[in-house]
Amino acid sequence: MSGSRPGDDADRMARVALTWLAEPGNRAVWQLVQAGGAEATLDRLLGGDIPEPTLRAAVISRTTAGDPRRLAEAALHRAERLGARVVVPADPEWPTGVDSLSTLELEGGDRINRNVRPPLCLWVRGGRRLDEAFARSVAVVGARAATNYGVHVTNELAYGLAEHGWTVVSGGAFGIDAAAHRAALTAGELTVAVLACGVDRPYPVGNSAMFEQIAESGLLMSEWPPGSDPLRHRFLIRNRVIAAATAGTVIVEAAARSGAVQTLSRTVALGRRAMVVPGPVTSAMSVGCHELLRRHPETVVVTGTAQVLEEVGTIGEYLAEIPRGRDHVRDDLDEDSALVLEAIPRRGTVGPEELAARAGLGVRTVLRRLSLLEMAGLVVRRSDGVALARSARRAPPGPV
Amino acid sequence: MSGSRPGDDADRMARVALTWLAEPGNRAVWQLVQAGGAEATLDRLLGGDIPEPTLRAAVISRTTAGDPRRLAEAALHRAERLGARVVVPADPEWPTGVDSLSTLELEGGDRINRNVRPPLCLWVRGGRRLDEAFARSVAVVGARAATNYGVHVTNELAYGLAEHGWTVVSGGAFGIDAAAHRAALTAGELTVAVLACGVDRPYPVGNSAMFEQIAESGLLMSEWPPGSDPLRHRFLIRNRVIAAATAGTVIVEAAARSGAVQTLSRTVALGRRAMVVPGPVTSAMSVGCHELLRRHPETVVVTGTAQVLEEVGTIGEYLAEIPRGRDHVRDDLDEDSALVLEAIPRRGTVGPEELAARAGLGVRTVLRRLSLLEMAGLVVRRSDGVALARSARRAPPGPV
Repeated sequence: MSGSRPGDDADRMARVALTWLAEPGNRAVWQLVQAGGAEATLDRLLGGDIPEPTLRAAVISRTTAGDPRRLAEAALHRAERLGARVVVPADPEWPTGVDSLSTLELEGGDRINRNVRPPLCLWVRGGRRLDEAFARSVAVVGARAATNYGVHVTNELAYGLAEHGWTVVSGGAFGIDAAAHRAALTAGELTVAVLACGVDRPYPVGNSAMFEQIAESGLLMSEWPPGSDPLRHRFLIRNRVIAAATAGTVIVEAAARSGAVQTLSRTVALGRRAMVVPGPVTSAMSVGCHELLRRHPETVVVTGTAQVLEEVGTIGEYLAEIPRGRDHVRDDLDEDSALVLEAIPRRGTVGPEELAARAGLGVRTVLRRLSLLEMAGLVVRRSDGVALARSARRAPPGPV
Repeated sequence: MSGSRPGDDADRMARVALTWLAEPGNRAVWQLVQAGGAEATLDRLLGGDIPEPTLRAAVISRTTAGDPRRLAEAALHRAERLGARVVVPADPEWPTGVDSLSTLELEGGDRINRNVRPPLCLWVRGGRRLDEAFARSVAVVGARAATNYGVHVTNELAYGLAEHGWTVVSGGAFGIDAAAHRAALTAGELTVAVLACGVDRPYPVGNSAMFEQIAESGLLMSEWPPGSDPLRHRFLIRNRVIAAATAGTVIVEAAARSGAVQTLSRTVALGRRAMVVPGPVTSAMSVGCHELLRRHPETVVVTGTAQVLEEVGTIGEYLAEIPRGRDHVRDDLDEDSALVLEAIPRRGTVGPEELAARAGLGVRTVLRRLSLLEMAGLVVRRSDGVALARSARRAPPGPV
């Protein structure tokens, strides 16, 4: 057994058994697997050689309920009948974003915040490859008790992201999550539901028709084997995967102390983009959003698709248009001044010589135009060259 | 004449005349007054000794329209009949906050952004002293085309600030400004309207009844002499005074590229508190607010009175309660743990010895309780002691 290789059937089975012995994300189990492999770790745990008392207690309680190897095999058979598969890190389609969890450290020492290590395996329903689905993906999550406002904004946002070829990832819940999935489905694009229960009986049952659609055109994904119940604490465990697998997370509506807020703390700690949609201060469903903006300087206000794309796109891929800039001043410029202005980079400074080269003008012309542009408030002089004034930064014409 | 002293009638008259010769905030005029006094500056400008060409042209155009000294005297007489007064820097009631404008430098070289120097004098109607009115003051400003949402939020906010003894300062306009003034009046508290026209005929006329109420119980204030028209550019000039005279500015609603946005850029540059009320992303009247939050990291989201007070109050005077923290965990603590937790400062770290002294417990007890508190996620260990975990920071019981 200890001769098995990562990704072979024994490794796969051991990972499934380990996830059954201890909840996903367990720090001690993950460290043992990293050190000695899944099979050896399973042998060790079943042999009772467990230094951590909490883990030891958990393993004893689970093994009295059944033989982990037998249960793992049963789960794999059940998945096969169901058309589901289990994906492990050695598989080509493993979504490597979740590996960032291997070094995540969160403030506060409680169990959920400590046990945030990567999944040992992922159960999947759906025809698309995981790695491709997550390559350009954004999480859109929020309150179950969403308001009409929240659902409307989610619709616009998720539809727009899907249209631009971004996978919309969410948690399958009522409210914001369901609105996000549905908008992506409506756009005819890919959406992934990351569940806190088995992929064979996605929760909540009220969203069953939607889950069937997602399984057909998108992906249902879970760390827990088929048949697993959506226990309350599993949603909190699951949230780290949503945060880690995507380029960024948008919270549309959230009450105070909500799961969405917890997801965003992971997003921030992982260095992913943390985005928040504001709402009326009179709405209880926006309290969590505003608290995030107040307490976490890393979170960014987003009000629409373009601003989300600006955050998650590769640099320069998308630049959200600043609402109505000083276009009136700009539009009155003579041709040479316009050329000079266009040649100034959106960020940073540039010298007059380089500017002349870029704009295809003489240096003296450039210097004269720069004086005019400075007077018009479009350009500022700095010690190392000139820069666009804040008010003059405008997106170039483009698709977004 | 050059023998006059700051604050005497000649100085007062000269300042009024200078404000008539060049719009308030003029950088060149202010520098001359700083260097040689108001009277000498007036002599010099009327003598034609003016280095700056723009100022020279302005002075020539104004002096052909009338004799500045005669016009200043007429304005002072008119003010007297009206029950208005002119306040100069030498007067005890001068609101010293506006003196911060003497060093304000803004990005972008346009005229309005350059000429942001302090007022030379202030015209006032109302029985209260300016300095006392502004000592604890917050500006609440925003869109004229306010929505019901904006008016509602402004009402709550301004009423709450007034109730807590803060002067509500605004610009007297329709929409958010008027809602802010009216809420303070309803609370029976002090409000100041900073106008861009003469205090004898406050603009807009539709708010006349409100202005009369403000003149009776609060203050109408302007840099322009009685009879002055509310010219469009004067609102932009005026905004710097609102920003400088108050401890902070709250923007409730603002369209893109609005005057309120311009006010907040001055607030930020002056180091005053810049606060923004978010709103529905679907509302055009919140676009300016969200842009401010996106582009200026110095701006803070505020959703109610308590959060504004937290910003502008002296340190520790007000602490806004974080919406529903981890009270459930806290409430389950044993007495010693609760004592230890209460003894940890809201910000910064503390060592176990000091903690023992503060809590009135033994060091060993403190160390044992700290371990429990750390496990509960309420306390974090740092290299130089322990600190409250973010989730455990909660306001002490208090009036706000």
